[in-house]
Amino acid sequence: MMDDYDSTFKHYLDLVENKLIQVIKDREPKNLYFPIEYILLDGGKRIRPLLCMLGCQSTGGDPYEAVDAAVAIEIMHNFTLVHDDIMDNSSVRRGKTTIHLKWDLPTAILSGDAMVGLALEVLSNYSNYANFGKIIEQFVYGYLEVCEGQALDMLFNKKVDVTSDDYFTMIQKKTAAVIQTSLAIGGLCSGAVEEDIETLREFGLNLGIAFQLQDDLLDLTASKDKLGKPIGNDILEKKKTLIVILAKERAKNAKDKELIDLIFSETPIASETISDYVNLFEKLDVFSDIQEIIDSYFDKARNSIFALSKNEGTKMLKYLLDKINVRSY
Amino acid sequence: MMDDYDSTFKHYLDLVENKLIQVIKDREPKNLYFPIEYILLDGGKRIRPLLCMLGCQSTGGDPYEAVDAAVAIEIMHNFTLVHDDIMDNSSVRRGKTTIHLKWDLPTAILSGDAMVGLALEVLSNYSNYANFGKIIEQFVYGYLEVCEGQALDMLFNKKVDVTSDDYFTMIQKKTAAVIQTSLAIGGLCSGAVEEDIETLREFGLNLGIAFQLQDDLLDLTASKDKLGKPIGNDILEKKKTLIVILAKERAKNAKDKELIDLIFSETPIASETISDYVNLFEKLDVFSDIQEIIDSYFDKARNSIFALSKNEGTKMLKYLLDKINVRSY
Repeated sequence: MMDDYDSTFKHYLDLVENKLIQVIKDREPKNLYFPIEYILLDGGKRIRPLLCMLGCQSTGGDPYEAVDAAVAIEIMHNFTLVHDDIMDNSSVRRGKTTIHLKWDLPTAILSGDAMVGLALEVLSNYSNYANFGKIIEQFVYGYLEVCEGQALDMLFNKKVDVTSDDYFTMIQKKTAAVIQTSLAIGGLCSGAVEEDIETLREFGLNLGIAFQLQDDLLDLTASKDKLGKPIGNDILEKKKTLIVILAKERAKNAKDKELIDLIFSETPIASETISDYVNLFEKLDVFSDIQEIIDSYFDKARNSIFALSKNEGTKMLKYLLDKINVRSY
Repeated sequence: MMDDYDSTFKHYLDLVENKLIQVIKDREPKNLYFPIEYILLDGGKRIRPLLCMLGCQSTGGDPYEAVDAAVAIEIMHNFTLVHDDIMDNSSVRRGKTTIHLKWDLPTAILSGDAMVGLALEVLSNYSNYANFGKIIEQFVYGYLEVCEGQALDMLFNKKVDVTSDDYFTMIQKKTAAVIQTSLAIGGLCSGAVEEDIETLREFGLNLGIAFQLQDDLLDLTASKDKLGKPIGNDILEKKKTLIVILAKERAKNAKDKELIDLIFSETPIASETISDYVNLFEKLDVFSDIQEIIDSYFDKARNSIFALSKNEGTKMLKYLLDKINVRSY
């Protein structure tokens, strides 16, 4: 039964992959579209497109109706990666050199910009749907939230007193809003009632928060090969994740405090120091407590599925949730 | 009569200005929205919003119906300025320091990104219009064309054999497509028939080409104060405008050829040399010939207005065209 769902997911994502290829092939000029192909066709977990198709299926729709929406969302998500990598000075993404380093800054800016246009072009395939207005509104909501979330993230890099509330506001915008949007647009493709769309948004909010907390944790606990980028990148970039905020609250002795304060200072952190941070976070029980928080958000998401009529789609949504819950990269 | 139209235009643009203020006020975080306010509310010629409202009125609609569309297009246009200024390393825009220099690179990238979202949010005010699908499609067309046009522009910076055909393809995408889109979306707001929308696109195409050729010419012939940036900027940036392409074809003696070849080389050009270029272009009759080409495109645009039913809107469209035809900045 479980294997069946995995092969269904693979089938869904093959459709997404084929459509992605179709969307970008034969476009000119190549200096604009080749970098887009480079990032779009290099894999990625494709969680958002899958959620979009399941958002459609779980509200009684045909999942194939949502393939274009799934593709639009994946393109939009990849746009955020291209621009975030510039802003964060990241050199590696999914094991490959980032676009602004492989090509140059103007190419990375412009390719990102064009991806937003491509996403909207694919989404325009629903222009004759009664729900098209709502689809665009939901897309724009997710898009603006992710911009605001990135702005907060940048703000927090310079801020010394980031609270856990600040952090949750930021990840709700930066990560959860697009996941909510993936599910809600899927639901809108099925013509679901507003109540079900709202349930999908609730599910997406909690899943999105859990997902980002997991990302923060995996940044320090995953294996480098699986992560596709160096371990402890967030620490090197001085991100004030919930891990860091909790550790700051808990650190008592001078040496531990000094290590944490380094994250809130202007002084660069050496990558050799990452293991010291890992040891400290473990000592302060931060990792295990964050894992509990993660699981509680997954539970919230899991519970909201019950508000939808039980069907193959809701079962798959639950299966996917459980799978993400135990991911190791 | 003419004065009346000018005061009508002022009235239209006051509505656009008020709506722009309304769109950006009270938004958070400020590190994202303050730079947007900085560029959006600092003037600009506002030709595109005016064309949008007249596109609506000239096809029998109420111009006030198109205010939101006009605002969306102006925001989108300003997004392209913010990102282009980064890509072109420009330090001054409308007499003010560009965002990436006044703030920083990440702020400029992200503010530009968010402006696309704001434009779409305002455009979503038409989500209950029968034409909403077409409005979004037209917007996306203009958006993607401007990205492709900028990519070609960047490509030409490195290319030594840019032809006048290449140049016209580039400006059709980079400049004319958004002007076409301004008019067409205005027409779509009025619920115009497809034939009239097509006429507006034709009008916009020719106006847009004329407008860009004028910009290229004014870059060398306008007064610095009126231009809001240094004279000869395109030469310093080694842009292969039609002026340069024509001059290259016509330059015969070694000294003139050398001056032109410098534009096609990697060697930086000193701003003191700009007057030499101006003198050369004048000697080769390039300025006067370009002016003739510009006037021919304005004529084409003017003639296409006759395909629309005569009304106050078409009269104003012609009046605006004549005004742009004789602009000095």
